[in-house]
Amino acid sequence: MERFSVPATSAVSLSDPFFAPRVEANRTATIPACLRFCEETHRLESFDLKWKDGDKWYPHIYWDSDVAKVVEGMARELARRPDPALAERLDAVARRIVAAQQPDGYLNTHFTQVEPEKRWSNLHECHELYCAGHLIEAAVAHFEATGERFFLDAMRRYADCIAKTFGRKRGQKRGYPGHEELELALCRLADATGERKYLDLAAYFVDERGRKPNYYVKKEGWQEGRLTYLQAHEPPREQREAVGHAVRWAYLCCGMADVAAATGDAGLFDACRAMWENATGRRMLVTGGIGTTREGEAFERDFKLGNLTAYAESCAAIGLALFSRRMHEITGEGRYLDVLERALYNGIPSGISLSGDRFFYQNPLASNADSPYDRERQSWFSCSCCPTNFARFWPQAAQLCWALSPGEVRLCVPAASELKLENGLCLKVESRYPYDGKVAVRVSGDARPAGTSAGAQARSAARSLAPFALSLRIPDWCPKFSLAVNGKRVAAKAKDGFVSIERLWKPGDEVALDLAMPVRVLRAHDAVEADAGRIALQRGPLVYALESVDNGPGLHRISIPAKQAFRLVRAKGLPRGTVAIAGKAFETTRPGDALYSAAAPRTRLRRFVAIPYALWQNRGLSEMQVWTRES
Amino acid sequence: MERFSVPATSAVSLSDPFFAPRVEANRTATIPACLRFCEETHRLESFDLKWKDGDKWYPHIYWDSDVAKVVEGMARELARRPDPALAERLDAVARRIVAAQQPDGYLNTHFTQVEPEKRWSNLHECHELYCAGHLIEAAVAHFEATGERFFLDAMRRYADCIAKTFGRKRGQKRGYPGHEELELALCRLADATGERKYLDLAAYFVDERGRKPNYYVKKEGWQEGRLTYLQAHEPPREQREAVGHAVRWAYLCCGMADVAAATGDAGLFDACRAMWENATGRRMLVTGGIGTTREGEAFERDFKLGNLTAYAESCAAIGLALFSRRMHEITGEGRYLDVLERALYNGIPSGISLSGDRFFYQNPLASNADSPYDRERQSWFSCSCCPTNFARFWPQAAQLCWALSPGEVRLCVPAASELKLENGLCLKVESRYPYDGKVAVRVSGDARPAGTSAGAQARSAARSLAPFALSLRIPDWCPKFSLAVNGKRVAAKAKDGFVSIERLWKPGDEVALDLAMPVRVLRAHDAVEADAGRIALQRGPLVYALESVDNGPGLHRISIPAKQAFRLVRAKGLPRGTVAIAGKAFETTRPGDALYSAAAPRTRLRRFVAIPYALWQNRGLSEMQVWTRES
Repeated sequence: MERFSVPATSAVSLSDPFFAPRVEANRTATIPACLRFCEETHRLESFDLKWKDGDKWYPHIYWDSDVAKVVEGMARELARRPDPALAERLDAVARRIVAAQQPDGYLNTHFTQVEPEKRWSNLHECHELYCAGHLIEAAVAHFEATGERFFLDAMRRYADCIAKTFGRKRGQKRGYPGHEELELALCRLADATGERKYLDLAAYFVDERGRKPNYYVKKEGWQEGRLTYLQAHEPPREQREAVGHAVRWAYLCCGMADVAAATGDAGLFDACRAMWENATGRRMLVTGGIGTTREGEAFERDFKLGNLTAYAESCAAIGLALFSRRMHEITGEGRYLDVLERALYNGIPSGISLSGDRFFYQNPLASNADSPYDRERQSWFSCSCCPTNFARFWPQAAQLCWALSPGEVRLCVPAASELKLENGLCLKVESRYPYDGKVAVRVSGDARPAGTSAGAQARSAARSLAPFALSLRIPDWCPKFSLAVNGKRVAAKAKDGFVSIERLWKPGDEVALDLAMPVRVLRAHDAVEADAGRIALQRGPLVYALESVDNGPGLHRISIPAKQAFRLVRAKGLPRGTVAIAGKAFETTRPGDALYSAAAPRTRLRRFVAIPYALWQNRGLSEMQVWTRES
Repeated sequence: MERFSVPATSAVSLSDPFFAPRVEANRTATIPACLRFCEETHRLESFDLKWKDGDKWYPHIYWDSDVAKVVEGMARELARRPDPALAERLDAVARRIVAAQQPDGYLNTHFTQVEPEKRWSNLHECHELYCAGHLIEAAVAHFEATGERFFLDAMRRYADCIAKTFGRKRGQKRGYPGHEELELALCRLADATGERKYLDLAAYFVDERGRKPNYYVKKEGWQEGRLTYLQAHEPPREQREAVGHAVRWAYLCCGMADVAAATGDAGLFDACRAMWENATGRRMLVTGGIGTTREGEAFERDFKLGNLTAYAESCAAIGLALFSRRMHEITGEGRYLDVLERALYNGIPSGISLSGDRFFYQNPLASNADSPYDRERQSWFSCSCCPTNFARFWPQAAQLCWALSPGEVRLCVPAASELKLENGLCLKVESRYPYDGKVAVRVSGDARPAGTSAGAQARSAARSLAPFALSLRIPDWCPKFSLAVNGKRVAAKAKDGFVSIERLWKPGDEVALDLAMPVRVLRAHDAVEADAGRIALQRGPLVYALESVDNGPGLHRISIPAKQAFRLVRAKGLPRGTVAIAGKAFETTRPGDALYSAAAPRTRLRRFVAIPYALWQNRGLSEMQVWTRES
């Protein structure tokens, strides 16, 4: 079913002003910081299986996943860019993990050390299969980066152990992951190994979930009423609404989409589509954040989208991006990338400092003295899923900008980047995106990769001569665009979010795309109570926010007229090239000290400055708000 | 220190359109309903001391207070209006309570039956002294209504038992009430009995509270950080901010004011004044509600005044009114009555249905599908302090309208009412207050009470001839007023919130006060984030609210222009005479189904209707909001 795929990590690189510094900070700051915390908190040590009752530390049920995610990040980073020191460190950690494997293939440091008799007995709460999923993802990334099989083979044995334990045969448990993740990991394992059985296991987990009688209720004593929390209230293929814990939901959807793509299961895909529509059309913040309430880190009802209270876990935005990428790969529809891009430029990067070593777990749309969440990014959390998720996410950023299919190359996000094609050509994107809509794609390279045989050269030459379509995404926020090939204007209409030019591309060819990038005044759906009478500013893919650092304290007193000529200005104290929006605002004050008064208010004209939401709280403690009252 | 006092219950009566029906409903519905629930829930039975371990019910630590409050209500009602059936019932319940008293005077059905060995061991949590306070208040009311002493004497013995247990002498506990109330009750007991020792005990409780080393921390293991919850973080006389559980705080302040008034303790009074200023000037809802967060039913920081989340327990508003009344009695300053009136016409009556038998525990300033609280009034609560508080509050309504001092009669709230003076004169207020500002006060009666001796007649005549000041309150909301005596305009200036006319008042005299009562557009202090860009309407003492019953669903889409000619209209489905406010509003809709869109919004002119906040949710389930966006 899948129509598009991502390019290999090594085939792409970024040089844009937004992601490239994040990817670099991931290598120099995020990964080292996560490794350090994994050591300091005994997460790594836990794999040595030397924990004893009475020790000062205790192997937590989700620790293995944190280490696995850092390892995945290290492997993806290594695949992106050779680094002997990193390779050595990765090898050491991977071997330390594998050494904890039990003779039957089982690998979980909590259950092995703390309660070995309770293996697989509390799936709904204990993250056992979730940790397995992340270990498998780490092993696949390790294999792809190094070509070495020891970790992958170990995780195959673990997957085989899981396949033996779970299923519909006599003597097997009919359980499934309490925190979904393993489903998508098994699909990756099936891809990496070519072994269908792992896909079948993923399909089993997706299909068995939520069946009646409910496994969690019957076997583990979980409450019927709390099944929505983990999307086990009905079989996923019957689900149409995005409910429960948002990260669990997003990972489940990724797994469902993977299974649907690999098996052509149209019913499963329909459920994915319906849930994606519900999540993004009625339950998503303007930043691409999902899971708006702290209670259960979960989705709320349609259109309930508070600002100060918006939970929007960093991991959930990452999950939504990964799910949306898959939906595009299956359908080729650009609207999935519109959401991917929204998360990519807003709700995901807001979770991490520009320095790469400070993190937000929650990403609300307003923050002030009354915020129920952290007002400054933290270096680590006791439940530290978000930092380690960034470690493995940023090395994928360049891949998310492109999509490939036989005969088509798609530029999904026109950040400055380079893609090496198998035919020897190289596509280089030049732009200041997301700060400017002018994009040039230059074709370079030739058909003769250096140092190859004459035969290979001939084959390359033949490939390079085949025509292919170069498709450029026209984002949902773009009101108009122009396109030129080699300086000649092309009248192209966007279809499903893309304009496409099919031709025999040759080195020296150049495509120029000019995406109009005005400041857009957004309003939320009428049903969104929290945003009534409020506007948000978006320019290009960036959603903007006011910070008190620029505007002084008391952001709630500011209102902005929607109709005005906004100006683009330099953002003070943020990286060179960052574009801020300035304009006129009103500030209303009511005279007197009385708590309530009928005194006439005074309104003064003033200036406001808004910066990209993704970059807030990089200049110290600050009030922040995305939705401002319209005046 | 006290300058003013309330008239006796039997000296006053109401005939206004707002309170009189509530007082009547209290007699016919509230008191009978509370009694029925006290029976059904075994609260009354608990006094028979026949509870056994294993019974289906369990005497809760606060049950005694609920029964005591209903008894107080019955007694106050009986004092207001003779009723043989009620008298009989009151006598029976009072005797049932007294029968539970232990030989040493102790009376608590929880500790006596459930854990007799734990008496006085957990003051901070177990409501033991709180229940004692309400029992004492009930006994005083019973004595005042019936003249019988058995209940009062029993409670004197209980107070003596408490006085023996607590104090600074060797062998005494240096504890004090975890939930304040006893302090004010002991002052009432001292008044009723003329015994100074009860006042001394009240003063001890007020003075000992919060001293270091802290009793709760040292003796009962309570956390230092949670002492503010029960105002025991420092001695009350040193406190300047309103903190912690709002009902506890209000009752403590009443007790402090009573002790200060009786002893002339200026330092204690200063603390009362500072806390009242903080509570009402920075932490009070526009309805007179206090204690804005559910967490601990407590005060929040200055100017944090959410609407949907505003907790504002009914009992807390009652407590604030009782405290404010005391502050006026001590100072004679009208601003205390401004707050009293705000609570009296808004945040108190909102807690009870017009039918008298349905209750709100919380009184938020907005309610819709996202409300964290009850959206409809309930008939009872497991913690049912509010219903029983209404039962004892409404019979006092008429008393709150007047204040007396030697040589002065004050009309504090010009609701239609009648006050019989000791000199034989009767003051009759005619008005449609709070719906109209025209007030007439007619003097009637004569110096010869019928059927008395010639000597008594002579004394009455002499009294009736003494001049006295009749003072009429000019509320804070009133921009201008006119005054006439016997049809002749009097140029009077308000001082401390009152205009005063001293003369030899005679039957037939008439004072006409015309309080201008325009619709006032209120704005909150600039620091109140929740109300930024919003207005509330007030007319006279009534704060108004929009209900979806009148305005259709989606109140958040409505905005109201502040400058317009508001119209007074009849409120549909509410008692005859209720005045609603109508005017023009705007409703903005954004076209399209997109969750976020830059589409231009459409604004249409429409009508709005607002009703008195106190009367909301008397016409079925409805959205409600007090603060509406200004357009």
